Amino acid sequence: MTTNPLLPMGEKARAASYALLGLGAAEKNALLATISAQLHAHQEAILAANAEDMILAEQSGLSGAMLDRLLLTPERLAAIRADIDTVIGLADPVGIDIDSRLLENGMRLARRRIPLGVVGVIYEARPNVTVDVAVLALKTGNAAIMRGGKETVRSNQALMVAIHAALAERGLPKEAVQLIDNPDRALVTALLNLDSHVDMVIPRGGAGLHQLCKEQARMPVITGGIGICHMFIDRAADLKRALALVENAKVQRPTVCNALDTLLVHQQVAAEFLPQVAAMLKPQGVTLKACPKALALLSGEAEAAGEGDFDTEWLSLVLGVKVVADVNEAIAHIRAHSSEHSESVITEDRRVADQFVAAINSAAVYVNASTRFTDGSQFGLGAEVAVSTQKLHARGPMGLEALTTYKWVGTGDYHARQ
Amino acid sequence: MTTNPLLPMGEKARAASYALLGLGAAEKNALLATISAQLHAHQEAILAANAEDMILAEQSGLSGAMLDRLLLTPERLAAIRADIDTVIGLADPVGIDIDSRLLENGMRLARRRIPLGVVGVIYEARPNVTVDVAVLALKTGNAAIMRGGKETVRSNQALMVAIHAALAERGLPKEAVQLIDNPDRALVTALLNLDSHVDMVIPRGGAGLHQLCKEQARMPVITGGIGICHMFIDRAADLKRALALVENAKVQRPTVCNALDTLLVHQQVAAEFLPQVAAMLKPQGVTLKACPKALALLSGEAEAAGEGDFDTEWLSLVLGVKVVADVNEAIAHIRAHSSEHSESVITEDRRVADQFVAAINSAAVYVNASTRFTDGSQFGLGAEVAVSTQKLHARGPMGLEALTTYKWVGTGDYHARQ
Repeated sequence: MTTNPLLPMGEKARAASYALLGLGAAEKNALLATISAQLHAHQEAILAANAEDMILAEQSGLSGAMLDRLLLTPERLAAIRADIDTVIGLADPVGIDIDSRLLENGMRLARRRIPLGVVGVIYEARPNVTVDVAVLALKTGNAAIMRGGKETVRSNQALMVAIHAALAERGLPKEAVQLIDNPDRALVTALLNLDSHVDMVIPRGGAGLHQLCKEQARMPVITGGIGICHMFIDRAADLKRALALVENAKVQRPTVCNALDTLLVHQQVAAEFLPQVAAMLKPQGVTLKACPKALALLSGEAEAAGEGDFDTEWLSLVLGVKVVADVNEAIAHIRAHSSEHSESVITEDRRVADQFVAAINSAAVYVNASTRFTDGSQFGLGAEVAVSTQKLHARGPMGLEALTTYKWVGTGDYHARQ
Repeated sequence: MTTNPLLPMGEKARAASYALLGLGAAEKNALLATISAQLHAHQEAILAANAEDMILAEQSGLSGAMLDRLLLTPERLAAIRADIDTVIGLADPVGIDIDSRLLENGMRLARRRIPLGVVGVIYEARPNVTVDVAVLALKTGNAAIMRGGKETVRSNQALMVAIHAALAERGLPKEAVQLIDNPDRALVTALLNLDSHVDMVIPRGGAGLHQLCKEQARMPVITGGIGICHMFIDRAADLKRALALVENAKVQRPTVCNALDTLLVHQQVAAEFLPQVAAMLKPQGVTLKACPKALALLSGEAEAAGEGDFDTEWLSLVLGVKVVADVNEAIAHIRAHSSEHSESVITEDRRVADQFVAAINSAAVYVNASTRFTDGSQFGLGAEVAVSTQKLHARGPMGLEALTTYKWVGTGDYHARQ
């Protein structure tokens, strides 16, 4: 058996996590403020490193959207620092007793919120995530091991200099936040095997990364972020208002996971509603991929949906359209094709709404609302660690609480079990 | 890519889980009562099948403790049925809104408790677990796929006949509870790869099974059940009362995971306390494995602790003993050697107690109490699904709630995101 090459990093992260345990909320907030100040102090070096990353990324032919995610500017750094201020303002979940009871034998038993310990995050070429994760982890008393996209190594190293300067300034071990900056992909596997020292892994990336983590991780993984989202327009919907929701869910920001992918329409209103949908969306550049029944109603305004089109997260101005017999067929379709992210029913009929909500167990289920609301800030969580579509620990937008766990604390008077 | 041989089973379990979604608490309790009645009606067949299992197990040389776990008797079946009554009496966690708020935009947003969906359980040759898991899963609206030890296949098949009769009597699909009764070990791997249809796997067995699940499972796994438990006797302990706690934690039931494995004693009281420990435990058949300092104080009453002895879950009348300088060394030892199950500090000094509780993040941490309390019934959970020593979803004794998750339910008036 070979030794895990990340073991020393894991050991240092674990030791650092013990140092973080001793910090109260005020000390953690002071640390975050120091990180913000150090980011400002290191701004020149960070932007210079990012400029190098950008040049190499352009040469390697990275797409425009990817380049935009990689880019740092003084304005973006200011926005990152503003986000730190937001996190500073959030309540600290650590140390709270979730519940506390007096057992019949007189022992007090509480469930107390504690940090997870060491959190691993694997993400793409987005330097803002580096700061974001560090700040959320430290706010909740966790150490972090981060593995960012190879295109952003220089930016991340420069950001790390600032973060480490802040940790040193506050007398804390710099290993509280560590970066895997070696681009060797074998280190991703090594991280996923380091269950002795990493308590949870959050992949922030595409479907391939999530699948890799499910297959290789030995520690709990939060998978998610893939949204094949549905909206069902019932026959009892207010069609005029429903049309505005379709537009919002599809067009407002089509590249994100909570954007609409498949529109299901009750057969009794399809002939009236679908041409309105086409008339509204086509001028906005939306391509409709329609089932045969919908295609017949959309005469020339839609393409025929192909194999797999109803299992696709579009992340673009494409919308699957399907006519269904009723709410039962809508539910069956969603169960078969959804990624369990966000689904919505549009109806004035309470029974249909109740049936839909009871039957669909996606992370977020809406009645008469856009799927676009599935988001940490929209849900009032203050910060979003990730969006989970799995069923354990946390579902949907994950706030600070998702970076904590609890322990049972029993306080007795020399209580022995009878 | 080959097809998973358990895919049909998974598909049927998923479909059955949808049927269970429609059941209210009263219907689920009626189902449980029917299972109890059917177990009674099938008692003769169950005991006959179990007798066959026992004969084959004896022939294959199964140990006495294993044989005892495999054995069913009329009395044990009655006890199993009494446990069903207990579960019927528990509150149904499904359908409860964990929280509910009105967002600033007027949309109501709630987190609603729902079943996990399909639960996989891998366990040893204990037929009582078959009923236990089926009942807990159904109570929380989950379908279950179970893989029991090969020695108990006949007993499990007979139990399944009764459970399926009950499901049929209540008009529910029998695939709500399915048994993998083919002893081929490749099917364990197949189950662990069935993440499309199994939402969580609970291994109930030894360290090897838990490790296998961590390595192979693609879905979330609840690992736990391994307890290397510590008790630290501080210099400020009431030694007389502490002695009774050592006895309780070590001797009352030495074969279970919450029994004491390592006793840590403050150096200032070791010379007084350790001989008392030996005088109390030796007549009860306990072997002491001592560090050099403790060995010197125990003159002939202990063996020298060997390599790995402080990393061993004894599950027997053996106790590791170590003298430590103070609470700091106790904390460091526990962090290095604990399985994060249960630890206890015995002291009258509040500051020592607070330091210990703040520093030790095991699933259960006690002040002046035996480690033996880490148990679902002791904690008032009513039923114990498993004992988790990992950090996500649930920690320590897991009650019915651990078989549920939540979804966000947003109810709007045609709310679009701005």
